[in-house]
Amino acid sequence: MTYRKPIVGIVGAGQLARMTVQASIPLDIGIVLLAASPDDGAAQVTPDVLVGPPDDPAALRALAARSDVITFDHELVDPDLLASLERDGVVVWPSAATMALAQDKRRQRSELGAAGFPVPLFAPVERVEDALAFGARAGWPWILKASRGGYDGRGVWVIESPDEARATCAAALAAGTVLLAEQRLPLDLELAVLVARRPAGEMVTYPPVETVQQDGMCRELRVPAAIGDDLAAEATAMARDIAERIGLVGIMAIELFVSGGEIYLNELAPRPHNSGHWTIEGALTSQFEQHLRAILDWPLGATVPTGDAVVTINLVGEGEERDPRARIPEAVAVPGARLHLYGKAARNGRKIGHVTVVDETLAGAERVARAAESLLFGRVVAGKDGV
Amino acid sequence: MTYRKPIVGIVGAGQLARMTVQASIPLDIGIVLLAASPDDGAAQVTPDVLVGPPDDPAALRALAARSDVITFDHELVDPDLLASLERDGVVVWPSAATMALAQDKRRQRSELGAAGFPVPLFAPVERVEDALAFGARAGWPWILKASRGGYDGRGVWVIESPDEARATCAAALAAGTVLLAEQRLPLDLELAVLVARRPAGEMVTYPPVETVQQDGMCRELRVPAAIGDDLAAEATAMARDIAERIGLVGIMAIELFVSGGEIYLNELAPRPHNSGHWTIEGALTSQFEQHLRAILDWPLGATVPTGDAVVTINLVGEGEERDPRARIPEAVAVPGARLHLYGKAARNGRKIGHVTVVDETLAGAERVARAAESLLFGRVVAGKDGV
Repeated sequence: MTYRKPIVGIVGAGQLARMTVQASIPLDIGIVLLAASPDDGAAQVTPDVLVGPPDDPAALRALAARSDVITFDHELVDPDLLASLERDGVVVWPSAATMALAQDKRRQRSELGAAGFPVPLFAPVERVEDALAFGARAGWPWILKASRGGYDGRGVWVIESPDEARATCAAALAAGTVLLAEQRLPLDLELAVLVARRPAGEMVTYPPVETVQQDGMCRELRVPAAIGDDLAAEATAMARDIAERIGLVGIMAIELFVSGGEIYLNELAPRPHNSGHWTIEGALTSQFEQHLRAILDWPLGATVPTGDAVVTINLVGEGEERDPRARIPEAVAVPGARLHLYGKAARNGRKIGHVTVVDETLAGAERVARAAESLLFGRVVAGKDGV
Repeated sequence: MTYRKPIVGIVGAGQLARMTVQASIPLDIGIVLLAASPDDGAAQVTPDVLVGPPDDPAALRALAARSDVITFDHELVDPDLLASLERDGVVVWPSAATMALAQDKRRQRSELGAAGFPVPLFAPVERVEDALAFGARAGWPWILKASRGGYDGRGVWVIESPDEARATCAAALAAGTVLLAEQRLPLDLELAVLVARRPAGEMVTYPPVETVQQDGMCRELRVPAAIGDDLAAEATAMARDIAERIGLVGIMAIELFVSGGEIYLNELAPRPHNSGHWTIEGALTSQFEQHLRAILDWPLGATVPTGDAVVTINLVGEGEERDPRARIPEAVAVPGARLHLYGKAARNGRKIGHVTVVDETLAGAERVARAAESLLFGRVVAGKDGV
């Protein structure tokens, strides 16, 4: 009997799909992409690409016809359309229900809060009055969020005053944005926990990673996170509980706040996630391979770190005229700096790659990663500045 | 200015090209293949594929027109054709001269022996009489080799007696095979050293790897090799000397015999090589990334092992009706076993993949790798036999 390899269809073709393609090759898993454009990061590096919008029923059905299971590079998919595919027998992981929850931060807050998970004080904002009432209750400043579609600081506003609440809410509501108000917690630090679950229920978690944010965008990952064993165990248990509760299949990042020594649930991302990029070199099984295993209902992989300390630094574009790719040769000269580029032009504020370093200490790993980053962006010149 | 990524053209599309494709993605290096068939292992996983024979001038020129540098998945290329490309300004690494030497085992022996490198006793075999004379001089049994094209035990014969010498040589000479006779050394073990060199002369070497052979085919790699520091230093120095002497650009495996505590040069393979597959997880820079760096004239990468002990086991086909890919899910359940499949049907005696394990001890690494191999070939069943 001839072997037929499993085919995974991915909706979207950004860097998450690109790194999933890499993970698919050694396991001889076939990948078909539904890319918005043939120039997308993942579409550049894999042969089997359908081009079409992620919410086009015909395009999704064409992808389904080619695939044993459908999964996602992003969350910009219509859950009703996914549900109709499921009714027709298409295997969709994470499920339409999970994708619906992931897209709706307001529902995440209310359902998981009601289930007893610790969430920051929050309220839906349907009218400007809701925002003013929330500010009176939670104190100023507080955070206004789009319930859907925000990332890297987009769709998030710090509301300092009633005047700002009025102006920002009115504009966002007029644009049709579904909003929620959220307490601004004084943060000790932010964490993420990656959890993977396969259909039969087997689960694995990775050690909590510290996510260092700047202007709402994650800039650095640190493993181990600067938290005690109790907090790590609590964060991990929370990730497992949520994965089980929502019937997760695939990998999911749970983003957490730590405030006053307590954990608060921030958001769920049921897919490979920026907070898991450290696992490519830093864990025995990368998050991308783990996601493929989970959605194919294969045994999950070991999540043990490959070293004492892992640091990943996100490379954020500073304008196309300063494309760091022109300085790749300089950066790869830094011993131990593992460079990952996403095939994207260096538009300002855009994540275009990352650098991971596994070392004996976090300080050592960070020093090496920063050296590579500085060379890439031309802030220092190779052979000078002690690099 | 828009960034233009470097494009590497690879002649051939087998597993070496396939693993080079993987290494190219994070560094945003473009790959174009010249594949004999669109089903070749590397052609399955990369979008930019020309289909044509590797010795067709028009196909090679088409590849050159698309590439910044041309390199090779195998040695079945006409060096004269490569030399004509070089004369036309095409960058070919390794050079036509290096490829010519790599294809000619007889020339390797005579030139490197004359240069003072220790080689086993050998002689060219132009007539049956040469073979008989060699047996009289070197003792029986001895080894008869095709000067060109042999691999995995093909093109190698153990000659036990004058009768066998007459029969085997006559048949091979009648088929037009260029032959050499070689002393059969009593082997302590076999080694390989990987060396990479860039055009300007920078060189790096990897720690010597022990290559465990069976029926002329490498079945297992072990790092560190079971040799003392002096022998390791001697092997490494030899690899560097040869790389410099032949003006190597790219990565090269130097295969060595250890006999009576002494090192003898076996063969050169100026490309990523089976003996270097352990570097994917087992070293800071894989041999595939290192080769890309070298031929693009980028700084070379650190070659430090990522753990105390690394074992790689080659997966060798036992017939298509027993395709191990049907048992991938069982095998990936073994924690720490890193599986690499080449997208090839499991024909008998064919290398179809490998498993690498990084561990604290060679025994521990081998045990894990063997467990995965046994599951893949259905020799044990998951959940039984203590696996």
